[in-house]
Amino acid sequence: MEFKVTPWEVEGIVDYQKLIEEFGTTPIDEKMLERIKKDFGELHLFLKRKIFFSHRDFDMILDRIEKNQKFALYTGRGPSGHTHLGHIMPWIFTKYLQDKTKANLYFQLTDDEKFLHEREMTIEETHRFAYENALDVIAVGFDPERTFIFSDIDYAKTLYNIAIKVAKKVTFSTVKAVFGFENSTNIGMIFYPSIQAAPCFLPSILENEKIPVLIPAAIDQDPYWRVTRDVAEKIGYYKPTAIHCTLLPSLQGASGKMSASDPDSAIFTVDTEEDVRRKVRNAFTGGRTSLKEQRELGGDPEVCSVFLYLYYLFEEDDTKIEERRKSCLNGDIICGECKAYLTEKIIRFLKEHQKRREKAKDVIEDFLLKD
Amino acid sequence: MEFKVTPWEVEGIVDYQKLIEEFGTTPIDEKMLERIKKDFGELHLFLKRKIFFSHRDFDMILDRIEKNQKFALYTGRGPSGHTHLGHIMPWIFTKYLQDKTKANLYFQLTDDEKFLHEREMTIEETHRFAYENALDVIAVGFDPERTFIFSDIDYAKTLYNIAIKVAKKVTFSTVKAVFGFENSTNIGMIFYPSIQAAPCFLPSILENEKIPVLIPAAIDQDPYWRVTRDVAEKIGYYKPTAIHCTLLPSLQGASGKMSASDPDSAIFTVDTEEDVRRKVRNAFTGGRTSLKEQRELGGDPEVCSVFLYLYYLFEEDDTKIEERRKSCLNGDIICGECKAYLTEKIIRFLKEHQKRREKAKDVIEDFLLKD
Repeated sequence: MEFKVTPWEVEGIVDYQKLIEEFGTTPIDEKMLERIKKDFGELHLFLKRKIFFSHRDFDMILDRIEKNQKFALYTGRGPSGHTHLGHIMPWIFTKYLQDKTKANLYFQLTDDEKFLHEREMTIEETHRFAYENALDVIAVGFDPERTFIFSDIDYAKTLYNIAIKVAKKVTFSTVKAVFGFENSTNIGMIFYPSIQAAPCFLPSILENEKIPVLIPAAIDQDPYWRVTRDVAEKIGYYKPTAIHCTLLPSLQGASGKMSASDPDSAIFTVDTEEDVRRKVRNAFTGGRTSLKEQRELGGDPEVCSVFLYLYYLFEEDDTKIEERRKSCLNGDIICGECKAYLTEKIIRFLKEHQKRREKAKDVIEDFLLKD
Repeated sequence: MEFKVTPWEVEGIVDYQKLIEEFGTTPIDEKMLERIKKDFGELHLFLKRKIFFSHRDFDMILDRIEKNQKFALYTGRGPSGHTHLGHIMPWIFTKYLQDKTKANLYFQLTDDEKFLHEREMTIEETHRFAYENALDVIAVGFDPERTFIFSDIDYAKTLYNIAIKVAKKVTFSTVKAVFGFENSTNIGMIFYPSIQAAPCFLPSILENEKIPVLIPAAIDQDPYWRVTRDVAEKIGYYKPTAIHCTLLPSLQGASGKMSASDPDSAIFTVDTEEDVRRKVRNAFTGGRTSLKEQRELGGDPEVCSVFLYLYYLFEEDDTKIEERRKSCLNGDIICGECKAYLTEKIIRFLKEHQKRREKAKDVIEDFLLKD
């Protein structure tokens, strides 16, 4: 089946092994997993379950960790709407990396990009969502001493001055080939990859020391790092390194990622209990058309968004998730049971998250970098 | 003869009448000159001599002047080196406009552009030249209360946030057609026209009132205003208006403008007396190969850079310049006499300018806009 992955759209059912080949990244193999386990004391669920499955030079970061050398974490969010669980997934992993390594985290809110890309959005809207999203970042629990959040709009002076150094080394041919830009693309979007590249070099500038970054992010963002890696050494910095996760599937079915433009495809951090109950109730599952068929033939957990939400985020117990998979395949459980289980898990998560999100409003200023 | 005019290069002998047609600007006609004379009390030399010869909607600015309505002046400089007399020419005219109208002047130093365009230049170099050039701007004698100078690098936050509004409305096709950009052009240059457009809207933002700008500048910069005019109303501002001058010819001959890359083609504001004497001595003239021929056939003032320097800048007396023209044509004077006359004029000008330039160092901070 055909699929397409760019930083702005995902179409079809993604074949992540093919994506590794197409993007030219490296799979995370068993040897690397063992090394991470040794270095960090434990393997995060997302590594065990191959949700983080690919990387660029992550071994170089492990070298530095083992030698007690500095590196910085960099990730971000395009604030075109409220945060959903698909966004939070890599942030949870980023927090794990920060907890284990005490690295500084630079978190970019690309309100300029979303303004430039979304025909109908104003700067005021994307800027407002940047701050809404920042509350979610803080609510994930990053170390306030080591976490620096910035909106491109508010931090434009610093970023533009790094970005032009990148931009001077990148031609239209390159961004055309990598991002699929066309002659009808606006010149803000054409320049924008250099703004997203800028934070790769920000730690070196702010900490006055050549420091490589590690970017934990969904693989759809990788084209940015490919371009940045080609430029980095030419302008005197380390190439950025990356560790990639898959995209959390839509609640409406496994094709494509969750989307802010289809509210029922995703659980947002600002959703109410009622929203969650409705969305999970309407979620696409691997169940059969009748209870009788389900009992006889079993369900298909691999295409079931409810099962996948449990697998990705809400059932950390490996034994339990395997039991659920088997029960489904055997027809021992029906969709309603899984939905009820997931609903309660999500509601519990959101309740805690929303509490921390509310508290984040009091401390947000401490996290923000501004010009 | 073929010629080419872009914001970055001028090739061949420019036919300014053709340029008016090609760029789609309007010639300054006698009726407009009369109106200016009436409004301003006197016609500046550059208008009488058709050095300022073309415009876009300058009549709209005259309407506002006559109705006592606000407008702002905007011009700039690309700091790829020291200021030469070709740069100062439009600034002198801008000062005349400010003196007559008391308008605010916004002066942009495009250190980012020069970094992006000049392969060998570093940001540090273009930024340093921005400040060197600013000293010359101040030395021209603008009103300190009404003049705001900014380097793109130092004012990037404000400019980037306006520029992305412009950029969203401009495609690669447009900048390709207008500026001749190619697939091999770097993405910083592709975006840059929106940074040069930004100051057209800056007065409206800073003064919190919809204000049109008038841009006095050499006509090679017009492509920027053409693009900006197409976008302005779509983003809620007035179209920028412009008044265009010709390019001061090179001392090495009438083809092309003076160039910082060929130091002997131009008189720089930091030149010594010795530099001036040498450069004028070596200047291209309309003289004959022998004194005998010169006396018999006369010279050609129209192609003579020495005559043109007097005409453009250093002989304000209309009677005297016409006498000199005739004397040359008749073979009554020889090149050495004109060169000696021009040399003393330039040395006197530079001496005064350099004094004011030195004093500008004490007040430069009062003129600068920064984020």
